[in-house]
Amino acid sequence: MLEQLKEDVFKANLDLVKHGLVIFTWGNVSAIDREKGLVVIKPSGVDYDVMKASDMVVVDLDGNVVDGDLKPSSDTPTHLELYKAFPEIGGVVHTHSTYATAWAQAGKDIPILGTTQADYFYGDVPCTRSMTEEEIAGDYEKDTGTVIIEAFEGRNPSHVPGVVVKNHGPFSWGKNADDAVHNAVVLEQIAKMDFIAFQVNPNADMNNHLTEKHFNRKHGANAYYGQGK
Amino acid sequence: MLEQLKEDVFKANLDLVKHGLVIFTWGNVSAIDREKGLVVIKPSGVDYDVMKASDMVVVDLDGNVVDGDLKPSSDTPTHLELYKAFPEIGGVVHTHSTYATAWAQAGKDIPILGTTQADYFYGDVPCTRSMTEEEIAGDYEKDTGTVIIEAFEGRNPSHVPGVVVKNHGPFSWGKNADDAVHNAVVLEQIAKMDFIAFQVNPNADMNNHLTEKHFNRKHGANAYYGQGK
Amino acid sequence: MLEQLKEDVFKANLDLVKHGLVIFTWGNVSAIDREKGLVVIKPSGVDYDVMKASDMVVVDLDGNVVDGDLKPSSDTPTHLELYKAFPEIGGVVHTHSTYATAWAQAGKDIPILGTTQADYFYGDVPCTRSMTEEEIAGDYEKDTGTVIIEAFEGRNPSHVPGVVVKNHGPFSWGKNADDAVHNAVVLEQIAKMDFIAFQVNPNADMNNHLTEKHFNRKHGANAYYGQGK
Amino acid sequence: MLEQLKEDVFKANLDLVKHGLVIFTWGNVSAIDREKGLVVIKPSGVDYDVMKASDMVVVDLDGNVVDGDLKPSSDTPTHLELYKAFPEIGGVVHTHSTYATAWAQAGKDIPILGTTQADYFYGDVPCTRSMTEEEIAGDYEKDTGTVIIEAFEGRNPSHVPGVVVKNHGPFSWGKNADDAVHNAVVLEQIAKMDFIAFQVNPNADMNNHLTEKHFNRKHGANAYYGQGK
Repeated sequence: MLEQLKEDVFKANLDLVKHGLVIFTWGNVSAIDREKGLVVIKPSGVDYDVMKASDMVVVDLDGNVVDGDLKPSSDTPTHLELYKAFPEIGGVVHTHSTYATAWAQAGKDIPILGTTQADYFYGDVPCTRSMTEEEIAGDYEKDTGTVIIEAFEGRNPSHVPGVVVKNHGPFSWGKNADDAVHNAVVLEQIAKMDFIAFQVNPNADMNNHLTEKHFNRKHGANAYYGQGK
Repeated sequence: MLEQLKEDVFKANLDLVKHGLVIFTWGNVSAIDREKGLVVIKPSGVDYDVMKASDMVVVDLDGNVVDGDLKPSSDTPTHLELYKAFPEIGGVVHTHSTYATAWAQAGKDIPILGTTQADYFYGDVPCTRSMTEEEIAGDYEKDTGTVIIEAFEGRNPSHVPGVVVKNHGPFSWGKNADDAVHNAVVLEQIAKMDFIAFQVNPNADMNNHLTEKHFNRKHGANAYYGQGK
Repeated sequence: MLEQLKEDVFKANLDLVKHGLVIFTWGNVSAIDREKGLVVIKPSGVDYDVMKASDMVVVDLDGNVVDGDLKPSSDTPTHLELYKAFPEIGGVVHTHSTYATAWAQAGKDIPILGTTQADYFYGDVPCTRSMTEEEIAGDYEKDTGTVIIEAFEGRNPSHVPGVVVKNHGPFSWGKNADDAVHNAVVLEQIAKMDFIAFQVNPNADMNNHLTEKHFNRKHGANAYYGQGK
Repeated sequence: MLEQLKEDVFKANLDLVKHGLVIFTWGNVSAIDREKGLVVIKPSGVDYDVMKASDMVVVDLDGNVVDGDLKPSSDTPTHLELYKAFPEIGGVVHTHSTYATAWAQAGKDIPILGTTQADYFYGDVPCTRSMTEEEIAGDYEKDTGTVIIEAFEGRNPSHVPGVVVKNHGPFSWGKNADDAVHNAVVLEQIAKMDFIAFQVNPNADMNNHLTEKHFNRKHGANAYYGQGK
């Protein structure tokens, strides 16, 4: 069932390690088959060096396991919330990558200061609000999705394909698993650059025209970056 | 004698190098056989690339060498104090890993700011008090254990499996040698994240409910992270 | 056409990855054949692990593609402006290397604080002015060249072989593609050292005599560094 | 001539690259044969990947080349001053390693904050004074040695086997080339740890008893660290 998607999700999980975003089992990738309404996700707490593509777990959008022998990632309910709220996304990534997680721990949005960010993010990367005692004690992983979705009220998740969850770490997404991993790498890199930039100049900022230009030359109707595939 | 434990301790010492926590001979791992009351530990000042499993030294809890041709790590008395005071632990690690050592040099507890820490540590990682002139001139390595144990008065060492010794560096522990190494990696990672987070926001903090939730979903009676082995 | 130059430019692009200055497709190198007035440059948005020397694109100084099946880098107009304004240069590099980009995001010149910089740069590395709304909306990549050239009014681009473009990232240049890559590595390294140095001492500075000495012992009429080839 | 010493110096130069202290040709190692009064040193500006042991240059203590086809490192006069002033040393290393160079650029001593430093350095690592216009314009490399020697008035260079030269970078030394490289690695590591520690706590410090204890357990008359070879 969904063999190709399992391969994609498996490879994307390993790519997190290759890009230095994940140690031990501190990350997970999923992807969705929109037609079938099924999500493929990493199993919970399985070492990356013994994990196989066939270990990937298939769940429906209510979180029921429909294929696989292992328990899905404990963060599965967060992924599902994002797929339900953001119909345009095809893959979701969660990591504890160092710099993005540090911004999450700082409880701060990652401001847009450069074209590196503007090439992928149309503005600041938001940090979610603190979760309430009730949300934490209750349906915690589902409500981690809730606070992310709240942070995107009035924003287009395709234009800002990532977030830092306060005191937790980054989530990112994209057209598919591979694209979501790509955005996770970008998010870690801009978190690092912003950390350094603000140490050098606490008043650093960027004007909106540059955001507009760089985002649109890659993603706009008249995009001219790349080979135009 | 204790061949399997020697293999485990030997491998765990090499893992410190693999994880980038140790250069030269700046680290040591031990493990205990609780039934026999014997500890296996790295020899002192031996290069990692010539060290063999059979070089591991066996000592009793009074520090007498009962097997092995080499002198045990000069930090052996610290390890023994920890095994005596914390009966639930099976392995101990000491390193001079960069960020955890920097916090030790700063003389500060590593505050809990994120779920990365809460997944392993139920609260702040304590920094020990300054040692007195008498402790330093006297039974120094033993009293390094003493100040660690003091820092854990009223705390459960299984819930906070590590410490930074002021002006020295981190010690961590766990169920066995491998688990203690795992916690050493986590400690270095959270030391790095906290350093960055406080540069971004000097007032960063986290509420206790999130600590409770994350620690317990991995370690509590109703833990649901992982495959429930 | 220009097969050797294509090989040189191809290899120089891969060297950016090898030196850790570039992830994904976030960099580009070009070189010029001054006699023919033709520039060889990396194609736009092509993955480094599938890119071949024959994929390099040849353009004239007006930006017309005269050889190659792919679209040239979207930054080509910036490279061309530099070749036209700085007749002594033979290669140009653009990256989003972490520390140099952070200084660009900070909007600050990289001050000369050490002989590491003075061995290559006769003074501070300038940061360009903010681009206007008109420049950004108009001929953006060409005017990225314009603001660089402005920053070098009264300066010798051979004596200061690099710049950070505000809110964007570093450009560097040299006698050829390989030399421009060399200067890109130096620029990243001095950006990192200056970041750390100013954290340690916000009032750090260096006297001009040391700049003079180090620059001239490598690049002056009586240079005595190296084997005097 | 001095074939074994050439091999040692050659290997030590490569070790600088292996330990990440040197890129390009930004470092040099020498060693002395005290009986013959001859010093073996790296040639100037030769790439590490083409350099051979036989390329090492032999000079006498007046700087005359007595063996070798290449020019010695431009820093040779600094090395010779150190060998003449510090009769107990057998090897000298100079690098532009990132963190130690940043402290040099900051113009600050590297304070002793931890046992990592005390295991090798009996106190702070000094930063030299600014060189005068006359020293820079005159016999610059020789006087780089002069300011280092000045910084060690009243100090034992065997007890503090390294220095940062203001606005330049670190020099270290030891019993032989390999030991000097070891101290160069330590110096870079403590420069990094101190940078982080002071960001975490600007008032960090350490009492002298700990310095005394750690230095002496490795280097004192009753040293008990290691296997006592």
